Amino acid sequence: MKRKVTLKQIAKELDVSISTVSKALRNSKEISEDTCNKVQAFAKLYNYRPNNIALSLKNRKTKTIGIIIPEIVHHFFSKVIRGIELVANKRGYNVIVGLSNESFSKEVINMEMLANGSIDGFILSISKETLLQQDYHHFNETINQGMPIVMFDRVVNEVNCDKVIVDDLLGSKNAVKKLIDNGCKNIALITTKDYVSVGRLRTQGYLEALEENKLEPQSNLILKIVEELDSEDHLEDLEAEIEGLFRGNSKIDGVFTVNELYALTAMKVARKLGKNIPEDVQIIGFTDGVLSKHATPSLTTVRQHAQQMGEKAAELLINRLEAEEDDEHYKTVVIETKIIERNSTK
Amino acid sequence: MKRKVTLKQIAKELDVSISTVSKALRNSKEISEDTCNKVQAFAKLYNYRPNNIALSLKNRKTKTIGIIIPEIVHHFFSKVIRGIELVANKRGYNVIVGLSNESFSKEVINMEMLANGSIDGFILSISKETLLQQDYHHFNETINQGMPIVMFDRVVNEVNCDKVIVDDLLGSKNAVKKLIDNGCKNIALITTKDYVSVGRLRTQGYLEALEENKLEPQSNLILKIVEELDSEDHLEDLEAEIEGLFRGNSKIDGVFTVNELYALTAMKVARKLGKNIPEDVQIIGFTDGVLSKHATPSLTTVRQHAQQMGEKAAELLINRLEAEEDDEHYKTVVIETKIIERNSTK
Repeated sequence: MKRKVTLKQIAKELDVSISTVSKALRNSKEISEDTCNKVQAFAKLYNYRPNNIALSLKNRKTKTIGIIIPEIVHHFFSKVIRGIELVANKRGYNVIVGLSNESFSKEVINMEMLANGSIDGFILSISKETLLQQDYHHFNETINQGMPIVMFDRVVNEVNCDKVIVDDLLGSKNAVKKLIDNGCKNIALITTKDYVSVGRLRTQGYLEALEENKLEPQSNLILKIVEELDSEDHLEDLEAEIEGLFRGNSKIDGVFTVNELYALTAMKVARKLGKNIPEDVQIIGFTDGVLSKHATPSLTTVRQHAQQMGEKAAELLINRLEAEEDDEHYKTVVIETKIIERNSTK
Repeated sequence: MKRKVTLKQIAKELDVSISTVSKALRNSKEISEDTCNKVQAFAKLYNYRPNNIALSLKNRKTKTIGIIIPEIVHHFFSKVIRGIELVANKRGYNVIVGLSNESFSKEVINMEMLANGSIDGFILSISKETLLQQDYHHFNETINQGMPIVMFDRVVNEVNCDKVIVDDLLGSKNAVKKLIDNGCKNIALITTKDYVSVGRLRTQGYLEALEENKLEPQSNLILKIVEELDSEDHLEDLEAEIEGLFRGNSKIDGVFTVNELYALTAMKVARKLGKNIPEDVQIIGFTDGVLSKHATPSLTTVRQHAQQMGEKAAELLINRLEAEEDDEHYKTVVIETKIIERNSTK
C-alpha cells in the first residue's frame, strides 16, 4: 500500500499554500496553468485522490456528522455540540469533532481529513482567519462534490448552504434598548474587532438602538478589544483596557458587552472604582455562558440558545442527507435571542 | 462498492450487544461458539473487516490523534484537549475528537470509527458506563492490534498502556489537611458515588487526612450526590441535598467538595443559612473550572493542571508512535496538584 499523501505535504513539498494546492487540484482559474500542472503531477505521483468524496458518496453512508468548530474551550460551542448530539443520536447518527483553532489551514486540513470517507456531511462555524482571508473555496468545493454543509453562528453569504444564525443585530438592539428604558444615558459598548461578523452585527445593533432613541453615539464610549486579550493569560490587560474606558468617561451608567468575560470584567472594574451595580452602572452581556448566573451580582444577559442552534443545524443536515431528491433551495434559520433579567440591571 | 456495515448494525441485526459482536469477531472465549459463528458469518456476508487497523498500520501514518472524552460541556476536558492540541500541533499532528457521552456503546462505536484508518493512536478518558460495566476489551484489542492508547484521568489497572493521572488522593488529603490546619473541626465532604475512581480516591484522601489528625469520620458529614443532580436542570435539587447536609449538622465549619459546582452550591447554601465564608465555614473545591475565581468570595481550589495533563498525554503518545522499536514498558505519569488559595478559606 502506498503511503497516503496529504494536501499539507504537497503544499510543503512545492512551497505553496494549502489553498493553492486545493485550488490547483480543481483546476481553479485563480491558479496559473504552470502551478496547476505541477501540483497535479505531484498529486498523481503520490496517489493523491481529490475526488474520493464524490466516489464514496453514492454508495456509502457513514451515519456520522463531522463538526468543525474554531475552539473547544468555549461554552457556546460546547452547548451547540450538545444540541447537535441530541438530535444526531436520536436519529441514529454519530458525531465527530475537528478543531480549526481559528486557523484557515487547520480548517482546510480537518475538512479534507473528515471528508475522506469518515462522514456524511458537515456542521461548522467558520474560523476567524478564514473570515479575514475571505477564502471560502474549500466550503464550496465540498458542497459541489455532493457533501452537504450546514453553517452556524459564523456564516458568510459567499457560500450557498443551510445556515443557522442568532439574530445578533436585534438581540443587541433589544439589550441596549433595555438599558435606555432603564434610564441609562451614557451607554458604553465593549466589543471585538469588526471582521468577525457577529461582532459587527452586535455593534450595529448598539448603534441602531441609540439612534432610534435620539442618543448621539460617542466614539469614546466604544471599546474594541483585540482578541489577544481574551485569553486567560491576559485578564489583567483586559481589565486595564476596561478601566481606561471607565476612567475616560465618568458618566458611564450603562454597559453592553458582546460576551460574558467582558461583562464580568466590567463589573469588577466598576466595583473597584466605587460604583454600585445596578444603582450606578447597569450591565448586560451577550452570552450563553456559565459564569453569568454565578456572578455577584448575577448578570443580565442576551441568551443565544446555543443548544437549540445545534439541534436545528443537525435537523437541517440530516433532513438533507435523508432526502429522496436533491433540494437546491437552502434555508437560513434565525434563532431568536431572549433577555434573561438578573441583578446587574434595575 | 458494497455498503459498509458497522458493529452497531451487526449487533442490531442479530439482537446481541455491541460488546458481544466485538468479542465474537475476535473469537473471544467469553462468547459461545454458536454466537461466534453467527456473528462472523454475518460480518463476512456484509464485508465487515475487523482487522483493517492492523492492515493499514504498517504502511500508513495519518498524523492524526483520536481523542475520546466522556463529555464536552466540561471545562476540565476542554482544557486537556487544549494541552493535547498544543503539543500535537507543535509536532505536526492533527487531533480529532469523539464523544462517548458517558456511554459504553458510544465509546466502542467511536473507537471503531476512528481506528478505521483515520488516526494513528488514541488519547482517552473512560466513560462512566464502561467503568460500571468493567468491560475493557475494546481498549485491549485496539492495543493488541498495534494502535497505541494513552489514558488520562479516568484510568483502570486492567488495561496496560501509558497513563496520565492526577494525584487525587494526595490532592484531597492536602486540601482537607489545610482545613484542619485552619482550625476546622467538623469538615463535611461532598462527593460523587464511588464507582468513578477519581471520586473514590478523593474520598479516601479526605478520610486519611481526618485519621492522621485524630478526627473521627462521621457518616452524616459525608454526602454522596447521585450524578443526575449534576446537570443544569437539577441545580435546585442539588441545593436541597446540600441544604439537608448543613441543616443536619449545625457544627459544620469546613467543606471539601470533589468539584466546583458542589463548592459553589455549598457557598450559596451557607450564605442562605446566615453563615459567613470564611469566618463561619471554610470551603475548598477540587477543580479546574472557570467559576472559582469569579465566585464571591472567590473559591480556594485544588488545581488539577488539566492542560499539562493533555500535553503530557500527547507527548507519551507521539513518542510511542515515532519510536523506532516497540516499547513494552508503559509509563504512568502523575501530575501533581496544587492548592490555589483564594477567599473561601482563612
